[in-house]
Formats: sequence, C-alpha cells, structure tokens
Amino acid sequence: MARRFGEFELVAQIFAPLARDAHGAFGLTDDVALLVPKPGEEIVLKTDSLVEGVHFRRDDPPATVGQKALRRALSDLAAKGAAPVAYLLAIALPEWIDTGWLEEFARGLSRDQTELGVSLHGGETNATPGPLTITVTAVGALPAGMLIRRIGAEPGDTVFVTGTIGDAGAGLAMLAGRTAAIAGAERDFLISRYRRPSPRLALGLALRGIAHASIDVSDGLVADLGHVADVSDVRIEIDSAAIPLSDALRQCCGAEREARILAATAGDDYEIAFTAPPGAESPIRAFGQKTGTGVTPIGRVVKGRGTVLLDETGLEIPLERRGYTHF
Amino acid sequence: MARRFGEFELVAQIFAPLARDAHGAFGLTDDVALLVPKPGEEIVLKTDSLVEGVHFRRDDPPATVGQKALRRALSDLAAKGAAPVAYLLAIALPEWIDTGWLEEFARGLSRDQTELGVSLHGGETNATPGPLTITVTAVGALPAGMLIRRIGAEPGDTVFVTGTIGDAGAGLAMLAGRTAAIAGAERDFLISRYRRPSPRLALGLALRGIAHASIDVSDGLVADLGHVADVSDVRIEIDSAAIPLSDALRQCCGAEREARILAATAGDDYEIAFTAPPGAESPIRAFGQKTGTGVTPIGRVVKGRGTVLLDETGLEIPLERRGYTHF
Repeated sequence: MARRFGEFELVAQIFAPLARDAHGAFGLTDDVALLVPKPGEEIVLKTDSLVEGVHFRRDDPPATVGQKALRRALSDLAAKGAAPVAYLLAIALPEWIDTGWLEEFARGLSRDQTELGVSLHGGETNATPGPLTITVTAVGALPAGMLIRRIGAEPGDTVFVTGTIGDAGAGLAMLAGRTAAIAGAERDFLISRYRRPSPRLALGLALRGIAHASIDVSDGLVADLGHVADVSDVRIEIDSAAIPLSDALRQCCGAEREARILAATAGDDYEIAFTAPPGAESPIRAFGQKTGTGVTPIGRVVKGRGTVLLDETGLEIPLERRGYTHF
Repeated sequence: MARRFGEFELVAQIFAPLARDAHGAFGLTDDVALLVPKPGEEIVLKTDSLVEGVHFRRDDPPATVGQKALRRALSDLAAKGAAPVAYLLAIALPEWIDTGWLEEFARGLSRDQTELGVSLHGGETNATPGPLTITVTAVGALPAGMLIRRIGAEPGDTVFVTGTIGDAGAGLAMLAGRTAAIAGAERDFLISRYRRPSPRLALGLALRGIAHASIDVSDGLVADLGHVADVSDVRIEIDSAAIPLSDALRQCCGAEREARILAATAGDDYEIAFTAPPGAESPIRAFGQKTGTGVTPIGRVVKGRGTVLLDETGLEIPLERRGYTHF
C-alpha cells in the first residue's frame, strides 16, 4: 500500500539505522558527514549513479537495487586496492516508490554493510518526476602511495581477471527476454550476478604492491582493458579461449566464439581486470584460493597500442562493439 | 543543434579540463579520485542532488544549473566551518541535453571553481529517460575537532543569519508566474538568488570556535532552525521583524507580516543560520564587514522546545508550513 512520506521522517525511520554505528555520520542528524583519516592514510572517492530502466529494472527486488548501487561503487574501490570505509547515498524517488519498497531497499543495504564492512555516513532524498535514480559515493582508504592505477601496465605483464565474465550480461538478456531462458539454479545464478555483483574487496587489498595496473570491469572486459592499454601506452592481447566462463553461462549461451565475444563485451561484471609482472602469478593464485576468488590469466601486455581479442590461433577477432555504453 | 556523444568523449572533452589542476583527480582518467589529507585534518562530505523540475527549471541557463548544484553542496560545508577542497559530479543526461548545453554547464562550473577555490576530482555521466539529475558530492576539510554541528545551541545564545532571506523564493515565484513580476535590476537580483546562491564560505571559516551551532538555510529559515532546536534540545525564538530582507524583495513583495512569513519559510536561501554566545556579536559583525557578508541577529535561544516566529509584540505567529518540502 503506497504511503507518501516527509523527507525527515524518511531519513529518521528508514536510513538512520544504517548510520547507527558510523562515527562521523551523527545518526544522519547533521548536514554533513565527518571522516577522520588515520595518519598516513589516503582517501579514495567514487561516485556512481544507477538509473531505473538503464542500470536496473523496476521489477528488480528493492533489496538488490540498493545492493547493486553500493556494490558497483565498492567494486571501483576494490580494483584500486582500497578498503571500504563509508558511503553516502542520494536518492531521487518517483511517485511509485512506497515505504515498503524503501524498507526492503534499506534491508538490502543493511545486509551488505555487515558483509562488506562499510556504513552509511550521509544521505539525501528528493522527489523526482522521472525514474528512480540512486547515487552512491563510496569512500575508501589505503596506505599512502598504494593506489593501483589504470596507468602502469608494462610489456611482459600477464593480464588477469577475477571471477567469471559475461554472467550479468546473460542474466539481463534473460530478464529482458532477449535470449532463450534456462531454468533452475543456473538461471538464478545469472540473474543474481546481474542484480547483485560481488566486489572483489579482499583480493583488491592483496593486489597492493603486486598489480601494475587495475580496473573494475563495468563497461565490458575488452573496453575496460582498452582504458588500461590507452593510459599505459601499451597493447593488451586477450586470449578469448582463456576468458573464465561460469557453468551457468556455458549452459545458457554455450562457450563458442560468439558466446565468448558477447561475454567479453557485455559489461556489468564488476570483476577486477589487472596486470602483474612475471612471478606474481603464484602468490596471486594462492591469495585467490584463500579468499575463494577465482583469478585467471587471460592475456598479456606487449609493446604497441590498443586492446585486441585473439582466437585460439592467435588471430584478432574483429569486434562490432567493445563494451556496453549507455549512450 | 543536438548531437549525441559517447560517455568517454564527453568526459575527456568537457569535464576533464575542470580536473586539470586537481591533484588526485588523474585528469578523470582513472576509476576513482584520491585525496591526501593533511596531518590533523578532518574531511567533511556532503552529497546533494538537483532534479530538473524540482530544484531547477529546464529553461534555467545551463551555466547556473551547474553552479547551483555546486553551490548548494558547498553551502553545507560553509555552515559547518569547512574549507572546500574538491567535488565529485554524477550527472544523468536526458535526450534533450546537447553538447552546447554541456559546454555552458561546464563553463559555469569552471568560473565557480576559480571563485570558490575548489576543483572537480571525479565524475560520472549516464543516460536517463527522465529529468536531468545532477548529484554533487562536496569534499571539505577542517582542523580536527572544529566542525560546527547542529547540536550545541545553548540558552542565552543569540541567533544570527547571513545575507538576506526569501530572495530565492521570490525569484522562483516570479519565474513560475505565481507572483506579480517586477522589472529591472531587482527582478534580476531575485532570480539570480534563486539560480546562483552564494555559499558563505569565508564567513563559515570565521565561525570556527565561535558559533555554538550552525545550519545552512535550504528548507526555510524556520524549518532549518527547527532542526537546530530539536537536536540541541532548546527553544529558538525568531523575531520576524529582524529577518533581513533585500531591497529587491521589499519592492517585489513588501515587508509586511505575510511577506516576512513567506520569506522565512520559502527555502533555497543557502545562507548560514547559527547561534553564538553573548560577546560573539562584535567579532562576528567585524568579520562580516571584512568579507562583505551581512550578519544579522534575528532571535535568541531559550530553554524549552521548538522554533517559533514572533511578531513585533512578542506573540507567536501561527505557521501553516515551516519550510519548503519536495514531497
């Protein structure tokens, strides 16, 4: 049952509990959030918006909408080697949102706060005549000088990616009816990967001082590694056959050339793609096993420019698009 | 002439120049912004969204739309005694926005960066099927322990406000055709106060260690001082006759009881309302003169609860509403 609400009532009842344990959030009763950096610590900031109909679907469960908003921003922190500290939330609410929806939304965030070690430090709610729009600003911290940049990939590096690629794209395609649906646990897995990505926070910390360059895979594996190659002034070769695919994705979409191209350009993965020098593979794999995060070598950094996807014979696969774009 | 654009092209061409001088912004070529706090410094964060049709009008000049977004968030920093350092920008773009609009938008921000001493550290652009939505996350800094809170107002304090109150409300009413329009410089002034508020950053710094409690006036003078009274557990009495009104507002709307009530509940002022102990008035006035910021005593803090607007005989003025609400 829809019930409209005043802004302050909303903040107090629904969002304040998310800030209960946060020093510097003042229980959301002040205008700003205060952050007290530890000595020698640097602060990492990322702002990221989700728009209904663009980044999520109106019929997505409210709990996962909040979780996706938070996890997307935290994924950027993970890729940079930062530990999450806090987040701010700005939410523009259309008429169709009722209190029940918001309560579920907050419940999802609450569960994520516990799981991911982060808390709400400040928030703002507004009305909008348009789509539900959620902006999360994530705040992380790391020791001085330890930020892992996009720049820094060097010829001779191996390229790695965490987890599996293409699941979220397949999940969305099923939800949108663009692909033949599968049933059961595999279907649930792919949709869950679309709605509730897994920021690789533990692995990101382990990459400090090891990875030369890193990025989170949001626009698509090829497009995002393209950014790394561009700013690092190197060429990145991705072996399409090496791209890790989940069993669910194989069941849904096969593991053929076309399926791999779709996976590598779909986006919304929120895995970490990074480069590291020879010798780093063994400690990285060990840490991946310890944290339950798959880490797969998928290519190499060479001299040159651009990013290419190679087939099993080493020939470049021509791509119509390199990633997902909202425009 | 409308021209659509790719996200990266957009970031590179239009927004990257705003980050040119910002250490830790990496020219917007990385996933996050890095902030290196000075020793002993605390960080202040505020996130704030503007929605087309709610917080600004589609026909507002693009330059002032960006400036309003930035200035609103900086106003919160000012009220807390923080110096601005950086901001992040998340912008959801509907179809009707073209490159020319964005260039004007960025030009407004560029001028403000110079004037207000702040720079863009990170940004994100998205498409939206709905209204233009702009979220600014402002980052400020201040010496440890110097944050001026809403809590802390004490009986015996004088209540002050900067600048003049009600101008933005009158400007909006004229733009919306809800009030008889005036012409010339006075009209321009009132509309400019709506479109391009003035965060009182210099005065905010001077309030460190002097003000007991402070808030920026965004929802309306009575409503915002109501928040101070609530969390400070005191009663605030505002003398309606003491509320500072601009000449333009007097010319547009008069200075009678009804006009004063409208001014005190209109919102969008982005002035600072604060309380300070006896003896603070003289240094505050001196600093106001030095920085060209009007500071006016408008009432007092007493024991009790709530915030009231008093007429010239000391009787409470009943209010239908205490401030502006978007819901």
